[in-house]
Amino acid sequence: MTDLMTPKAFEAALREVGKTRYHDLHRFHKKLHGGQCSFEQVQAWALNRYCYQEAVPRKDAAFMSRVHDRALRREWIHRIHDHDGFGEEPGGIERWLILTDALGFDRDYVVSRKGAMSATKFAVEAYVHFVREQPLVVAVASSLTELFAPSIHRERISGMLEHYDFVDDNVMAYFKRRLSQAPRDSDFALEYVKANCRTRQEQDGCIDAVKFKCDVLWSQLDALWTGYVDGAIPPGAWRPGEGMKKKARAGRAGKSRAAAA
Amino acid sequence: MTDLMTPKAFEAALREVGKTRYHDLHRFHKKLHGGQCSFEQVQAWALNRYCYQEAVPRKDAAFMSRVHDRALRREWIHRIHDHDGFGEEPGGIERWLILTDALGFDRDYVVSRKGAMSATKFAVEAYVHFVREQPLVVAVASSLTELFAPSIHRERISGMLEHYDFVDDNVMAYFKRRLSQAPRDSDFALEYVKANCRTRQEQDGCIDAVKFKCDVLWSQLDALWTGYVDGAIPPGAWRPGEGMKKKARAGRAGKSRAAAA
Repeated sequence: MTDLMTPKAFEAALREVGKTRYHDLHRFHKKLHGGQCSFEQVQAWALNRYCYQEAVPRKDAAFMSRVHDRALRREWIHRIHDHDGFGEEPGGIERWLILTDALGFDRDYVVSRKGAMSATKFAVEAYVHFVREQPLVVAVASSLTELFAPSIHRERISGMLEHYDFVDDNVMAYFKRRLSQAPRDSDFALEYVKANCRTRQEQDGCIDAVKFKCDVLWSQLDALWTGYVDGAIPPGAWRPGEGMKKKARAGRAGKSRAAAA
Repeated sequence: MTDLMTPKAFEAALREVGKTRYHDLHRFHKKLHGGQCSFEQVQAWALNRYCYQEAVPRKDAAFMSRVHDRALRREWIHRIHDHDGFGEEPGGIERWLILTDALGFDRDYVVSRKGAMSATKFAVEAYVHFVREQPLVVAVASSLTELFAPSIHRERISGMLEHYDFVDDNVMAYFKRRLSQAPRDSDFALEYVKANCRTRQEQDGCIDAVKFKCDVLWSQLDALWTGYVDGAIPPGAWRPGEGMKKKARAGRAGKSRAAAA
């Protein structure tokens, strides 16, 4: 097939990627939102995922650095504000740090990314590089995993609130905020790729970009599983007890029901 | 000399670069603000310099894409707002287009950058690449030509208002706005490089960055001189009369006193 897909068929193909590759299908996700993670496993997840959160505004800046269209830059910049905050608005990274606070981490430790697994950092930086190097329409397409995000966020909010006593509404603020932010962004990006793909090759490139992005997310959960479920923590990566606030509460499991090895 | 300079000596060395290399020393600048440029030469200058204006927010985004320090990104992002605008604020590029409007250009033609000289585009993209690739402190230092900008802007505002009847306060809005923006930015960048250079090698790298940036500016004026004063317009570059608004006023010289061949 080398014919240009209709916008409808193209959108369906983009959405189809989520059904087979989005990280809501990953066993770590199921374990996390199902309340099967130990406190330490939730810690490992939040600590590593900080790297992803922190990379997102950088990949958005990398994208903007390549855009000659001022109107597109003016549209895109709110994504940086959403994560970094702007003026009085603290932003998504700050909300993520409220989560790591609740998990007992020292902020400087989290922000240093010293305890994150290399696999995590490689994956998120691959995303920054992808956006810096690929054709613009393909770079935009890589953000389209946000099409699939609201359902995972809803699942995560309800699942984590139900199952973990160290999680409350304040801690879940990041995900609640994304419920409204992600659809705005994915609507824009979806319209952009539909309007700007002129060849089947570009459309296929966009579908591959969504697969790539799913891989970025999936590989982070694979690494977490290896390190903190299988227990094969890589050299240099965080070990339970490290990086805690000076006055950290003692380790706790709360309602967390299991601590698989 | 391999000893770390004192902050005072380092600042003096950075400022010294301006005295010998900043483009206020260029013969095209003297001709422009002295009222010696023809209408067409002012057009060529504004058309080409649009490329520089348009590159600045992209280089700032390229910088931000590399910064892991959220506080620094939150500080830096106002530079993108200054140029691209944000919300109701139209931004510096819009103000530049008011200048090219006054010079009779069609906006689409200006924004397309089709008529700009390759030398201009090579120079400004070199700046984007420099900021994307050099050590962060060196990338910050490359913005320090703003230390020298207010005096050239003041000279340009008064000189152009005096000598060209197609220039009024509205047209000079870009430069007037930069009189307050540039010192804020250069103060921050100067303090940043003074605080963050830990070796003489880094300090020398910063001084070289200011030289590099002066070269970026200087080479643009050299290209203008070659093309539009010497009259050796490169193939593909704008020729007087091209890219005008449909209802452009007829070419005019106004108070412009000369059109050196």
